[in-house]
Amino acid sequence: MKTSVTVLGLGLMGAALAEAFLKDGRTVTVWNRSPAKAGPLVAKGAMKAGTAAEAISASPLVIVCLSVYANAEEILTGDALAGRTIVQLTNGTPRQARDLAGRVTGNGGRYVDGGIMAVPPMIGRPGALVLYSGDDEAFGEHRETLAVLGRPQFLGADPGLAPLFDLALLDAMYGMIAGFQHAVALVRSEKIPATTFEPMATAWLTAMMASFPEQARAVDEGDFGTAVSSVATSQVAFPGLIETSRDQGVDPGHLPALRELFDRAVAEGHGDDGLARLITLLAR
Amino acid sequence: MKTSVTVLGLGLMGAALAEAFLKDGRTVTVWNRSPAKAGPLVAKGAMKAGTAAEAISASPLVIVCLSVYANAEEILTGDALAGRTIVQLTNGTPRQARDLAGRVTGNGGRYVDGGIMAVPPMIGRPGALVLYSGDDEAFGEHRETLAVLGRPQFLGADPGLAPLFDLALLDAMYGMIAGFQHAVALVRSEKIPATTFEPMATAWLTAMMASFPEQARAVDEGDFGTAVSSVATSQVAFPGLIETSRDQGVDPGHLPALRELFDRAVAEGHGDDGLARLITLLAR
Repeated sequence: MKTSVTVLGLGLMGAALAEAFLKDGRTVTVWNRSPAKAGPLVAKGAMKAGTAAEAISASPLVIVCLSVYANAEEILTGDALAGRTIVQLTNGTPRQARDLAGRVTGNGGRYVDGGIMAVPPMIGRPGALVLYSGDDEAFGEHRETLAVLGRPQFLGADPGLAPLFDLALLDAMYGMIAGFQHAVALVRSEKIPATTFEPMATAWLTAMMASFPEQARAVDEGDFGTAVSSVATSQVAFPGLIETSRDQGVDPGHLPALRELFDRAVAEGHGDDGLARLITLLAR
Repeated sequence: MKTSVTVLGLGLMGAALAEAFLKDGRTVTVWNRSPAKAGPLVAKGAMKAGTAAEAISASPLVIVCLSVYANAEEILTGDALAGRTIVQLTNGTPRQARDLAGRVTGNGGRYVDGGIMAVPPMIGRPGALVLYSGDDEAFGEHRETLAVLGRPQFLGADPGLAPLFDLALLDAMYGMIAGFQHAVALVRSEKIPATTFEPMATAWLTAMMASFPEQARAVDEGDFGTAVSSVATSQVAFPGLIETSRDQGVDPGHLPALRELFDRAVAEGHGDDGLARLITLLAR
């Protein structure tokens, strides 16, 4: 028999998770602070619990997907946790995950933290990736059930790892989006459509991403020699980028922060190094 | 007979350009402020001019690749320019390109500005892209010669377009690199090797780049509705990103600047819009 599942929190993401389990033919118990959100899921066969504790008691596997971490901390308490596996998918920091893991295990529960690298419409489809870390035995037992949501990837026993990787991937993504958007603002300042620029930008960024494996190797090995592109060569681009932004009526945005890092690297004697050197300067 | 070419400026990039023309069997005249740099090229068959004016007079097509724009402005002057096509590949701003174009045409020359989207070892190879804009007749006449350096792409008659696109592509690239590097600093703060994180990051960023065509369409059409990912949904990620960075001993870097933009978008009532809305907020 398939493991029955509880889903706490029925926002866009929580509802998508519950629906994926229902589609997979599982017994699904749902709970949400404002009970009306349970309606559409009940119509599809979910059981509605009256309280969070009731919902936790209903299934061996409890998925938590609330809007903010504080709500998860408030709900994940008490005797109901004993013998349950809590899979906490609410976005939080590594520290929050480790704290909550301690409280859940203190109440006799098993704790797995997770980061959903997908938007709600992707849940249950091949493109969805979900990162997990924490109790590896509990993860192993429920891997098959969790795979209903998306491809599960286990990162290790530290419950902080999944939120750390989740945040790091978001971090990387927002940097990429910020760069693209700022570039689009520049070309649009000359009345050139974004759709004219976008294919060139996408091709260019895809090509430039080829530098990432070498950057990763360089920083891991502490070997920053380069024959291709030095910190000093890149540094000289920033005054022009910022000046042109202002000339074109575009907010320099994040560029002064990048310029500062390049300037600092050169000032500290790393001008001839490859760009990976900057990673070490971010660590304080 | 193949067009003969002059190359002014023999830094790493200028030397690579001259060498590509030599390999293509052309008569190449070179000049550099410190004359010693011409030596290796002369050994490969280049002619060395005694002055910049002499070098300009030697060929119908003059490629300029100096370290800073001010040097180009100083050299591109006088009667020698008459009847020459100047292809100015020194990095500059759109305004600088337009100013210099006016001075060159005022002296009877034709002006094309360009942006090399490649590092020196890529010159003359299939991956190199060079953007051009300016005198379209002059570009058309010399397209075949310029194709020796890399794939030429002509953007339009405004000489400011090539430096604008060049800067915009660099801008996009530095944002992407900054995001990746900051993310790597985060995971390394937990002693996780960058090489463990990099393949996941590259796959994730490649997948997320799929949002760019839709963002471009949205901003061109001024249609910011979204069913996938709103400004408000992303906004809530930034406090956690910044807090976690500090917890992990990583400089928040460019993140506060991004947070400010998201906060402003929400404060101005755009919380329910798609991320493309942010592009409009960058334009002042």
